[in-house]
Amino acid sequence: MRNGAILNIAHGLLEREAEVLAANRKDMEAGRRAGLSEALLDRLLLTHERLEGMAADVRQVATLPDPLGEVSDMRTLPNGLQLGRKRVPLGVIAAIYESRPNVTVDIASLCLKSGNACILRGGKEAIHSNTALAAVVRDAVAAAGAPENAVQFIESTDRALVGEMLRMRDVIDLLIPRGGAQLIRYVAENATMPVVTGGVGVCHTYVDAAADIGMAVEVAHNAKTRRPSICNALDTLLVHEAVSASLLPVLGRRWAEARVEMRCDERSLRILNTAEIPDLALKPAAQDDFGKEFLALVAAVRVVDSLDEALAHIERHGSGHSEAIVTADYGAAMRFLDEVDAAAVYVNASTQFTDGAQFGLGAEVGISTQKMHARGPMGPRELTSYKWIILGSGQTRPL
Amino acid sequence: MRNGAILNIAHGLLEREAEVLAANRKDMEAGRRAGLSEALLDRLLLTHERLEGMAADVRQVATLPDPLGEVSDMRTLPNGLQLGRKRVPLGVIAAIYESRPNVTVDIASLCLKSGNACILRGGKEAIHSNTALAAVVRDAVAAAGAPENAVQFIESTDRALVGEMLRMRDVIDLLIPRGGAQLIRYVAENATMPVVTGGVGVCHTYVDAAADIGMAVEVAHNAKTRRPSICNALDTLLVHEAVSASLLPVLGRRWAEARVEMRCDERSLRILNTAEIPDLALKPAAQDDFGKEFLALVAAVRVVDSLDEALAHIERHGSGHSEAIVTADYGAAMRFLDEVDAAAVYVNASTQFTDGAQFGLGAEVGISTQKMHARGPMGPRELTSYKWIILGSGQTRPL
Repeated sequence: MRNGAILNIAHGLLEREAEVLAANRKDMEAGRRAGLSEALLDRLLLTHERLEGMAADVRQVATLPDPLGEVSDMRTLPNGLQLGRKRVPLGVIAAIYESRPNVTVDIASLCLKSGNACILRGGKEAIHSNTALAAVVRDAVAAAGAPENAVQFIESTDRALVGEMLRMRDVIDLLIPRGGAQLIRYVAENATMPVVTGGVGVCHTYVDAAADIGMAVEVAHNAKTRRPSICNALDTLLVHEAVSASLLPVLGRRWAEARVEMRCDERSLRILNTAEIPDLALKPAAQDDFGKEFLALVAAVRVVDSLDEALAHIERHGSGHSEAIVTADYGAAMRFLDEVDAAAVYVNASTQFTDGAQFGLGAEVGISTQKMHARGPMGPRELTSYKWIILGSGQTRPL
Repeated sequence: MRNGAILNIAHGLLEREAEVLAANRKDMEAGRRAGLSEALLDRLLLTHERLEGMAADVRQVATLPDPLGEVSDMRTLPNGLQLGRKRVPLGVIAAIYESRPNVTVDIASLCLKSGNACILRGGKEAIHSNTALAAVVRDAVAAAGAPENAVQFIESTDRALVGEMLRMRDVIDLLIPRGGAQLIRYVAENATMPVVTGGVGVCHTYVDAAADIGMAVEVAHNAKTRRPSICNALDTLLVHEAVSASLLPVLGRRWAEARVEMRCDERSLRILNTAEIPDLALKPAAQDDFGKEFLALVAAVRVVDSLDEALAHIERHGSGHSEAIVTADYGAAMRFLDEVDAAAVYVNASTQFTDGAQFGLGAEVGISTQKMHARGPMGPRELTSYKWIILGSGQTRPL
């Protein structure tokens, strides 16, 4: 029934394309009148191709293994009690999110997959699109024979409702905020129920003294430029002093071509200035450029004297998302893996791999940067809990 | 080093018995002056035997398997990346608890076992005992070559400090309140960091139409009377109408002997009145007796017409802790296991088994009644998280 509802969503998205795109046009017009930036308008926009992409993603969720019902750690105690953990839904998951309308469909299908009811609260910029998409989803659920109220969408954009949701501890088991750092912080500090926070990624790539320079350039370049606007993109490049003079001019040339602005500490600035690279956007790093999530073609750059200094820098400025070392030194790689406290710790690979589909979870509702419950990409299994089941034959506990 | 510190604690508890018992006498005297109840004074009391018991429990923690370092789900992706989850500490765990001084030692040793630092805030009634025990623990940690600040104890009883702790989101990864329902509710609603709530158990035992009466009497009696003051004790007995006339008089006689007060709905009251059991403390149930955690020799009793009515009652009044059915009917047992939403769901056994040691976790910091992160008894493994580790050879992510 759950997979049937999910496949119905994919079908409904394409069948009711005209209705959804008409609603989206209303949001786009209102957005233009309100002077939204081109980037925000692009996030809001739905097209035939984008609906097809959404439908394909939804169909993919239907093919994932069922996260529910698995019984683990089942064993028989000396008194004959059989005891194990059975995987069950969390219950009711609420999501508060910003402008992308595809989030409505993503979260609804992942919650259906994992047997959870959901309450969706989208941003006001996308209200018409989200309302139309929620109607598609609810009809799809009903057509599969499941209760349509398994997916609820809040059609009012009244801001006071968010405050009210945050207090509904007795009804909502988990709250997922998806959006900017400000929304996430507000929700985490004011919610009375458990919250999964994440999405803010201040990510470092550290090029060790023993790095292969060619590999380091490719890994750092990909981490920064493949998609600069996502949370797993490189924000700060740390370079060991021993390889700074060989690495930085090569990477500088690549970044000049890709129009990446480099905000440099004193030593890296000196090396790059000396290299006289055409069209390189170079400036001294401000105090707060280290620890900033740029979400753009900008990178902070610092030369460090040791692995210890790199580890201390990451400990101080990282957000616990994705961190990488490039090195050929086994000991340095092992220390980095052990000592960096982040959701995803890489040796010799781009941080842009941090993603539910890449990690084999099928899809994700978000990337957790907290340590409770789930860390990193959260797929359907991360939206479940377990209960202990105990099968007895009249056992009583001695005093 | 971690197990060494834990064994040092066990040693220190016995070696410094005089110092600890002297501190405890101060608390006991202050408690008597303040008019604490005998029950509270008994919770506060430390003796040679109790210190030996604490030391034995601590030694037991040292023998448990190490929860850290396990790597799971390790696999190689088609692009050659090796990816897995490695078990790591949560970080800093804070505990706010009430009068029992043994909690200081329990939580410190479980946090040491799981590689977490901890910040302990005990109740003011036990301040001298806790301060002495914390000194034993910190010295034990230092003697093992670990930083003594891995265990921190707040020696001030200023209440404002609790409010301040609840806002320390950047420093504290997990907060564990241990105490009454009021403390837990206050902490859950005001903490800015993740909280594990639990400890409040409104537990039902449902005797089905197909129950063996002898087994049902033994299971319900044990669930109520073995230790009535703990959270997994029976609070409400639900009895199927078909067996109510045969079960209730037999159980009534057992409970009259054990001085269990029965607060009954109309039907069970009629049956028990008719049975004329000597010394039975019998009264009509008040509206709020259903859904109450008695923590005493009191049970609410209700006759139901069906399994559905029992499930609905538990859904409405249970606290998600421990629930049991007694039945010989396979279908009823399976429905109860599937449909009851609680940390521990039993067939034909006493709910008093809900306990970390009984469940094979070795020891527990508490029993979670929420669904995030961990459910039911929380042992050392439940005080850990994981990080994704990714071992590459220069992989970059395609567009």
